[in-house]
Amino acid sequence: MKTLIVHAHPEPKSLNGSLTDHAVTVLRDAGHEVRVSDLYAMGWKAAADADDYGPHASSPLKVPLDSGRAFDAGTLTPDVRAEQEKLLWADTVILQFPLWWYSMPAILKGWVDRVFTYRFAYGVGEHSDTKYGERFGEGTLAGRRALLSVTVGGPEAHYAPRGINGPIDDLLFPIQHGILHYPGLEVLPPFVVHGSDRLDPADYPAVAAAWEHRLRTLETTAPVRYRRQNFGDYEIPALQLKPGLEPAGRTGFGLHLEA
Amino acid sequence: MKTLIVHAHPEPKSLNGSLTDHAVTVLRDAGHEVRVSDLYAMGWKAAADADDYGPHASSPLKVPLDSGRAFDAGTLTPDVRAEQEKLLWADTVILQFPLWWYSMPAILKGWVDRVFTYRFAYGVGEHSDTKYGERFGEGTLAGRRALLSVTVGGPEAHYAPRGINGPIDDLLFPIQHGILHYPGLEVLPPFVVHGSDRLDPADYPAVAAAWEHRLRTLETTAPVRYRRQNFGDYEIPALQLKPGLEPAGRTGFGLHLEA
Repeated sequence: MKTLIVHAHPEPKSLNGSLTDHAVTVLRDAGHEVRVSDLYAMGWKAAADADDYGPHASSPLKVPLDSGRAFDAGTLTPDVRAEQEKLLWADTVILQFPLWWYSMPAILKGWVDRVFTYRFAYGVGEHSDTKYGERFGEGTLAGRRALLSVTVGGPEAHYAPRGINGPIDDLLFPIQHGILHYPGLEVLPPFVVHGSDRLDPADYPAVAAAWEHRLRTLETTAPVRYRRQNFGDYEIPALQLKPGLEPAGRTGFGLHLEA
Repeated sequence: MKTLIVHAHPEPKSLNGSLTDHAVTVLRDAGHEVRVSDLYAMGWKAAADADDYGPHASSPLKVPLDSGRAFDAGTLTPDVRAEQEKLLWADTVILQFPLWWYSMPAILKGWVDRVFTYRFAYGVGEHSDTKYGERFGEGTLAGRRALLSVTVGGPEAHYAPRGINGPIDDLLFPIQHGILHYPGLEVLPPFVVHGSDRLDPADYPAVAAAWEHRLRTLETTAPVRYRRQNFGDYEIPALQLKPGLEPAGRTGFGLHLEA
């Protein structure tokens, strides 16, 4: 197994830092290869702009088209090309981050914004009467797996089906479905540590053991069953789920899980 | 009316640039005051780190506690303090951005991560048997209004209730409810331009007219009726919605709208 861990926390001695260190140790001990993109340590540039596209940036700038042109020409900046190469090297991608304001930290969003370029992560594949590009289950990263490892400050109850923040699976849907499933990654159920703001050091061993269990079972864990776009569930090109495919009463993001 | 527009697009000659320029013109013509935080033009630092908290950063860094300590001591960096002052000056906040990977661009997420500090946007108010801090309808920014103005590359059908991306209101929930409603802002229904990747210049006047209508009716538009935390709808401290408050069959994020 070849695992890329994309790590997004400014403090190495944080819970996130400990979880990434533990993952590296556990996976290497099990004989796997691991690479880590520690975004803060790398000084990762978060904001996508014309400088990313070199001589192929047009004026006015068109982010999708210019990023795709630079991708095709091989003129994306070296930092972005290196991350794309790591994604193609890996068979498993772990994103390790704290949930800040119900989403990923800006530095990690900037990794997505800049690395997931047109022609690499979107704008891939042909459009026809039966196919609307290669995405949501197909695409450049198909055949690979992804896993979110997320620390959440608040208690689990606040993220339960009736919790005030909304269900954690719905809060993570734009990331798991919209960012990871989109270019073809199979998404494993997330590893979520709740109550991280008040985690007692005495509680850490149990967290580390749960994390280790997830890491040791990466290859056998069943992915979340997000529907694939081009295999009959959706009208094309409207991309609406065909009537009646969902269990009674299921609505919203849940529609896009297989019954 | 005093409006702060937080603008997040790298290209001034983009649709987003045009919408912000138009908003400034329309609001000033109507006699209102307008300030613009053009994040790319300002070179906004996106990644929250120890440098934000000056001499009050502890080691190891604790982002919530250190940001709150620096807020209380007045030692947050000048760029962050200036944005907090603009938010307190404004009665209306507009976030203008393109939907990138189903959320805001990294530079705007970094504005939230760094400006919405502990003690300013969260960690506000007392906890008791009837109150769990001042948040979700109360807080530092209570009495102010917020509006998302979002350009979306794909067509509206893909973001409809059965659309493959998920419903646009659900995709925006972590921002509208989790970021804006949380510190007390009243959230107006979003202004969404779909199909922006293929917008014909001939279509722009209709978009501009629709935007102008929204701007001219900012003060009379009814906000989204997100439930308030401390007014009887939620169990405290579990913060679960009490049974039976929602219309039959409503689940997920929709639970947090008043019936």
